[in-house]
Amino acid sequence: MENFPKTDRNKVKRLPKRGHYDRETIFSILDAGFLCHVGFVVDGQPFVIPTAYGRDGDAIYLHGSSKSRMLNSLDQGIPVCLTVTHVDGLVLARSAFHHSINYRSAVIFGTAHEVKGEEKERALFLISENILKGRWDEVRGPNEKEMKATSVLRLDIESASAKVRTGPPGDDEEDYALPIWAGVVPLSQVAGAPVADPLLREGIPVAGSVKKLTGQED
Amino acid sequence: MENFPKTDRNKVKRLPKRGHYDRETIFSILDAGFLCHVGFVVDGQPFVIPTAYGRDGDAIYLHGSSKSRMLNSLDQGIPVCLTVTHVDGLVLARSAFHHSINYRSAVIFGTAHEVKGEEKERALFLISENILKGRWDEVRGPNEKEMKATSVLRLDIESASAKVRTGPPGDDEEDYALPIWAGVVPLSQVAGAPVADPLLREGIPVAGSVKKLTGQED
Repeated sequence: MENFPKTDRNKVKRLPKRGHYDRETIFSILDAGFLCHVGFVVDGQPFVIPTAYGRDGDAIYLHGSSKSRMLNSLDQGIPVCLTVTHVDGLVLARSAFHHSINYRSAVIFGTAHEVKGEEKERALFLISENILKGRWDEVRGPNEKEMKATSVLRLDIESASAKVRTGPPGDDEEDYALPIWAGVVPLSQVAGAPVADPLLREGIPVAGSVKKLTGQED
Repeated sequence: MENFPKTDRNKVKRLPKRGHYDRETIFSILDAGFLCHVGFVVDGQPFVIPTAYGRDGDAIYLHGSSKSRMLNSLDQGIPVCLTVTHVDGLVLARSAFHHSINYRSAVIFGTAHEVKGEEKERALFLISENILKGRWDEVRGPNEKEMKATSVLRLDIESASAKVRTGPPGDDEEDYALPIWAGVVPLSQVAGAPVADPLLREGIPVAGSVKKLTGQED
């Protein structure tokens, strides 16, 4: 897959060795998450809002209420920055200065516009699958009224970069002699045991998608 | 503690029942995390960058390289939006439409400026403590050269709001009869077993701060 061209907008300036511009790295970060932070500007004021997303090639889909301030702002064709970050660990060095975080982040630039009809339906499926694979086919699909109440935007990726840090701390040469523990504490997002809706009818088994996610697969 | 006044900037417009403006709720969300997404605008282009933070009252501290594009942009006194989000669970309804996410997010508005001297030192301590309590006292503190290479900004919170969703899905009345599993899958960030630096000298025990975090306290 082709790289995104390095420009002033997406260039990783601090610690450029951690920068990546290839679609494989960027897409793998996007596909490992379901929550992004979307940045946009209204009257000079930036807003950063967390929201779910789905991806299809170079397009990212966002959805929400037709009345959403964010979606209605974005649909004006204004510049958007969409960022996805995974925290993988605390990097604990011997000096305060060299402490760091292991992470993978993707920063996406583009503009968004509303999609309708078949593309809208497919986008909702992709967002749902990105949150919990297999769930879409287990549930009641959206009816006409619900589709009307929902807006879907497509953000075409114009430019993007990723920044990744992995591995142990890097200390100053002379600090390795210090009697200080150093290493990494791995951090990850884990799914706990599913909690049934108190209003769940009796005799309904946990859904297949949930069993898969929580490792309870038969 | 006083509420932040509700204005056009911080008002939660979608699902206003989920909105909170009190310092207690907002600060508890900030204090439960260490990674924020900072949004700012350069030449009309929004940027959203993940970074660590610490809090002291109504002030949020950010740090980074003195050469950081983000810090140098922010120090111009431009408007900033800083968002912290915790994902607490997948909310799985009987209909696709009522699927949701349990989350706590805080959205902070303000402007930042560089701090120096004692306030800078204290800010670095607060950021470090917010990432891993107790670590600061275990390690070699910053020397003069490292302090010079580091910039610290203080963002005074001018306006803020939180948005919180908890609890089971809310389905349409007639959907409760459907034979579809519904409930919540809790999600949380967990710390794994510490991985020692391959260059760690022999005989150095895991640090107290790390034992506390990973539940290995004596």
